[in-house]
Amino acid sequence: MLTALQTDLASVVEGVNLVWVLTVTFLIFFMHAGFAMLEAGQVRAKNVANQLTKNLLTWSIGVIVFFLLGAAVSSIVAGVTGGPSTTITSAFMGLYAPDAAATTAWVDWLFGAVFAMTAATIVSGAVAGRARLRAYLTYTIFIAGVIYPVVVGVTWAGGFLGGLGFHDFAGGMIVHGMGGIAGLTAAWLIGPRMNRFNADGSANVIPGHSITFAVLGTLILAFGWYGFNVGTAAAPLAYADGAVTLGSFAYVGRVALVTTLGMAAGAIGAGGVAMYKTGKVDTLYVANGLLAGLVGVTAIADDIVWPGALVVGLLAGMQLPIVFEFVEKRLRIDDVCAVFPVHGSAGILGALLYPVFAMPVWHGGASVVSLAIPQIVGVGVIAIWTFAATAAIFGAFRAVGQARVSADHERQGLDTAEHGVDTYPEFGSPDTDTGIRADGSGIPHGDGFMTTGKED
Amino acid sequence: MLTALQTDLASVVEGVNLVWVLTVTFLIFFMHAGFAMLEAGQVRAKNVANQLTKNLLTWSIGVIVFFLLGAAVSSIVAGVTGGPSTTITSAFMGLYAPDAAATTAWVDWLFGAVFAMTAATIVSGAVAGRARLRAYLTYTIFIAGVIYPVVVGVTWAGGFLGGLGFHDFAGGMIVHGMGGIAGLTAAWLIGPRMNRFNADGSANVIPGHSITFAVLGTLILAFGWYGFNVGTAAAPLAYADGAVTLGSFAYVGRVALVTTLGMAAGAIGAGGVAMYKTGKVDTLYVANGLLAGLVGVTAIADDIVWPGALVVGLLAGMQLPIVFEFVEKRLRIDDVCAVFPVHGSAGILGALLYPVFAMPVWHGGASVVSLAIPQIVGVGVIAIWTFAATAAIFGAFRAVGQARVSADHERQGLDTAEHGVDTYPEFGSPDTDTGIRADGSGIPHGDGFMTTGKED
Amino acid sequence: MLTALQTDLASVVEGVNLVWVLTVTFLIFFMHAGFAMLEAGQVRAKNVANQLTKNLLTWSIGVIVFFLLGAAVSSIVAGVTGGPSTTITSAFMGLYAPDAAATTAWVDWLFGAVFAMTAATIVSGAVAGRARLRAYLTYTIFIAGVIYPVVVGVTWAGGFLGGLGFHDFAGGMIVHGMGGIAGLTAAWLIGPRMNRFNADGSANVIPGHSITFAVLGTLILAFGWYGFNVGTAAAPLAYADGAVTLGSFAYVGRVALVTTLGMAAGAIGAGGVAMYKTGKVDTLYVANGLLAGLVGVTAIADDIVWPGALVVGLLAGMQLPIVFEFVEKRLRIDDVCAVFPVHGSAGILGALLYPVFAMPVWHGGASVVSLAIPQIVGVGVIAIWTFAATAAIFGAFRAVGQARVSADHERQGLDTAEHGVDTYPEFGSPDTDTGIRADGSGIPHGDGFMTTGKED
Repeated sequence: MLTALQTDLASVVEGVNLVWVLTVTFLIFFMHAGFAMLEAGQVRAKNVANQLTKNLLTWSIGVIVFFLLGAAVSSIVAGVTGGPSTTITSAFMGLYAPDAAATTAWVDWLFGAVFAMTAATIVSGAVAGRARLRAYLTYTIFIAGVIYPVVVGVTWAGGFLGGLGFHDFAGGMIVHGMGGIAGLTAAWLIGPRMNRFNADGSANVIPGHSITFAVLGTLILAFGWYGFNVGTAAAPLAYADGAVTLGSFAYVGRVALVTTLGMAAGAIGAGGVAMYKTGKVDTLYVANGLLAGLVGVTAIADDIVWPGALVVGLLAGMQLPIVFEFVEKRLRIDDVCAVFPVHGSAGILGALLYPVFAMPVWHGGASVVSLAIPQIVGVGVIAIWTFAATAAIFGAFRAVGQARVSADHERQGLDTAEHGVDTYPEFGSPDTDTGIRADGSGIPHGDGFMTTGKED
Repeated sequence: MLTALQTDLASVVEGVNLVWVLTVTFLIFFMHAGFAMLEAGQVRAKNVANQLTKNLLTWSIGVIVFFLLGAAVSSIVAGVTGGPSTTITSAFMGLYAPDAAATTAWVDWLFGAVFAMTAATIVSGAVAGRARLRAYLTYTIFIAGVIYPVVVGVTWAGGFLGGLGFHDFAGGMIVHGMGGIAGLTAAWLIGPRMNRFNADGSANVIPGHSITFAVLGTLILAFGWYGFNVGTAAAPLAYADGAVTLGSFAYVGRVALVTTLGMAAGAIGAGGVAMYKTGKVDTLYVANGLLAGLVGVTAIADDIVWPGALVVGLLAGMQLPIVFEFVEKRLRIDDVCAVFPVHGSAGILGALLYPVFAMPVWHGGASVVSLAIPQIVGVGVIAIWTFAATAAIFGAFRAVGQARVSADHERQGLDTAEHGVDTYPEFGSPDTDTGIRADGSGIPHGDGFMTTGKED
Repeated sequence: MLTALQTDLASVVEGVNLVWVLTVTFLIFFMHAGFAMLEAGQVRAKNVANQLTKNLLTWSIGVIVFFLLGAAVSSIVAGVTGGPSTTITSAFMGLYAPDAAATTAWVDWLFGAVFAMTAATIVSGAVAGRARLRAYLTYTIFIAGVIYPVVVGVTWAGGFLGGLGFHDFAGGMIVHGMGGIAGLTAAWLIGPRMNRFNADGSANVIPGHSITFAVLGTLILAFGWYGFNVGTAAAPLAYADGAVTLGSFAYVGRVALVTTLGMAAGAIGAGGVAMYKTGKVDTLYVANGLLAGLVGVTAIADDIVWPGALVVGLLAGMQLPIVFEFVEKRLRIDDVCAVFPVHGSAGILGALLYPVFAMPVWHGGASVVSLAIPQIVGVGVIAIWTFAATAAIFGAFRAVGQARVSADHERQGLDTAEHGVDTYPEFGSPDTDTGIRADGSGIPHGDGFMTTGKED
């Protein structure tokens, strides 16, 4: 009878954990709508449908590729690089796996898939307005099938970075950092939109068509991010040797708190820098700063205390305007939706600050240096791999002149050229020669602003 | 003491199941926002507020009617048509039902209500831009109070189709198929928008005002659909004879996987057909194809394996452009938001493919024919009933000249005519004579496109 | 062994409760996106980014202030005003609280924080289009750090109104009522937007720029409100003396039902009054009426039966057009997004109707009068405190001429003036002299409409 009750408890634990994992998985899926709106709002009206189509197809193509290939690649890479040989899930489980096992395995697969698709979809924001759809979708197949799975294989799935002690709680580096680096690399190879930079190297602004959609996307992302971070404390309950304990939920309150304070501090950090430099609070800096704050704490949300979250979030927000200007003015890369400052550098920052803010009490007092080495190695390996793989694919497309649309198509807009649609057929004729005035001169990028920097 | 612990376990099971059912019910409710955006984006700017008002009032009027009448009709119809006499829930439970019973019953009622409102709201997308508000809202009362409840009564609630073995897991036919058929019937009886068809029978395009809102609606719907399908695996835990088991959650992983692959394949299927025919990827086909893929697997998500989901989703997506053109060019019905191809034919397709893709191992090896007969009968009965009941109501309104607004009101737009509002007072003057050029000639429907099919 | 199983059950109960509280907390957080869209849609295109920035910063600044200060103020006020001395949570818990305790405490804190931020963000809708950002954000610090926490301290946290028996289930008065009163007070002190009223005291209309965003916000809010109300039935399971019971979930079905019927009746009530007065159904009345219906039942959703929800929701909806006109025509206050009729008067109405609709069977048959006194006292105390504190802060800003932007900045729009951005750079030039025709005359407010009241 007691044994029967213990079996009951195991069922209860499995049921509760499934309810949680499914709920947060749905929230993370909804981040896709957030990315769609965030990016759509930050591109020209003539390129909105293209951005939305990329979003829909990144999910649709990517999730099938990740099912048929990516998940298995993760497992194989983990095994090959010295980790424990993990079970190959997804398509390779076969068709008729016993119900209960299939439930756990396939729910776990979907939980992994929504993280993979987050990484994949970040890239489209960087290359908006000129990347050729076929080149982009080919890259989607690679990032979902190989590039991201390799990163997961060497880290979470148990590969050599995992063995080394690389710490990334919910994907600040593994998901967002790699997505941001991939986006920057792709934007660099594809080249800037026409009129984005002048012959003398100075930058023009090509403001997005709707700040409203961008902020809506920001808030949808923040909503889904609670699933992303808090949900990563994956199992409310643990069952072992006949006893139930509070599983990884023992620290879930800390993760929820740290996520909240990180995003708040990020918005304040970015908005504060803008205010300091211009006397005005650029809405897009506040919105993207909130996201940078979230990225900043994502890798370390399980191991920092709340003052750490405030500091990391603030730094992640403050670096946004600085890195955005650096990418534009020094690197002269046209990262349309600021995906590198938001996801890339903020993700790297969070991962590298881990040794500073991780609480010794949760680590047996490991030294800062011993914590720092795996973080530095991990960030470096992920960055180099992501850069190299992305550069290889977009470099190949570029070599054969297929990385970007023709100048004519870019001028008329990708919506017409690639999709045959007009996103807003009733709202006037958007200016097609974006970035230049009627007299042909460029519109300078508002100094200290993410966008126009309109004067009173 | 052991008995006490068993009582505890029963409480735990009830608590866990309530948490799940409530969470997914909220997600399904949120689909209403998805429909609002999807439909608003696909209508002219002058008709947006009308579409949104219909959406709000479909929910508000419909849910009260379903509470006072519809739920009881389901129970009565189930009993009358030979099913087990089910308990009459909702308003007829009285006021003072014991707390615990009321909780279970009323949560179950709300879970049923959000499905009912999904069916009801689909219709508004088909009749956009010309249906009279009073006619539409009268129909809402009938669909929420009688038409949909009868369908549920003869199927899920235990009526004769249920007894025959008709299989519809989460409402691919019962909810979406019937909604799509109702929409097509209503659009046929009300007639097309002015200028939608030329005298020679050829079609003009009247493009919707915002693809952005349409895609936002698509992604909100996909998010809510996880609740719709995965949530239908209603009870995480089961408690019987003192023992807890993993309830219907034993297959929840399969449902989550199949739902994911079905929507992905649907988007690819519809986009692929568009690409094949035109060389361009119409954004609205991709978005609606994703939804058609979801509809396609909804009836069968519990009993197919993943290759089946890929095939059914792909077929559901591929039939979308074909059926959309058939409805337009052959039937000459103006189904504004493509609700029949998305919900109707995709729902029928999924239900009819059940015998082909249902896994014998879960059915004791029943023959394809023995599985097919109830599906064919079920689809036929639901289609005929929905068509007849809808035709009777809109036919009556048409007979007395009340089914659609006056030509003047249609030209100026329903927002002004029926609601006294201007949805976008600052964004220029939308062209009121939609569907025709300044010289009075029609704008041909882009061949192979869902909308304009703009040339480079 | 039995003891061990009881410990297991306690863990299970804690895990289930955490899953629920976290899920509904995320839903309530998402209401922030609803407010952002609802308010953005109801302001001019030139002020949208300002509204969105306020929303983002209300959350970001407010939640940190509530963490560092507000939550502690609640606890202290509760203790000082005679309640049981409650534990001080949030920042004052320290850094290293034991994991399990921190989880419960910090999740509870976040659950409280999302309610606090709801109250704070309501205010921005009333003062849109002319409040100075610095004044508004200073007020945000006060409402998050002191004003709202004092209200919670004297009520939910156990202060003297709680001791008196003041009943407010989920914050119909404590959150929405106080937010609506604060908004009205602020709008009064800051004064109306230019051209909103004519010299003879008659009102002009300044229609918002997008009904679509307003309705999207409405539906997001309704979605989140299920978390707000149903979630307040906070603990699915209770564990005491070794036994598990169904916690506060015993009445959760009633709360879900009442919330559903209340919002439906609210939309019908407001839409019906509009229809009666004008023959047309103003979309914004329907949308805001749905929200007013939700506010109306929020204070009493645990203790009324369904006919009560229909009546209270209907009354809350019906009072909306009446109170909106009263505020405009009698008080001549420019409450841009109708936050007082939606949140203020509807919240007061619900709280005051409690004695009428509370079911005696759940109260041991307390007399209507004995129930009414604490409600009247509670509503009065909250209203006076909120009014006085808000008036002090905005009065001080007004005294030094810092409450509103300059007339030039108001005319050009706050987006350019305060943020240096153009929300819709491609959609024509919005009319800057809003509220007046080209000849300088005002556009009269449509009688019986929330907005223009356009004629056929």
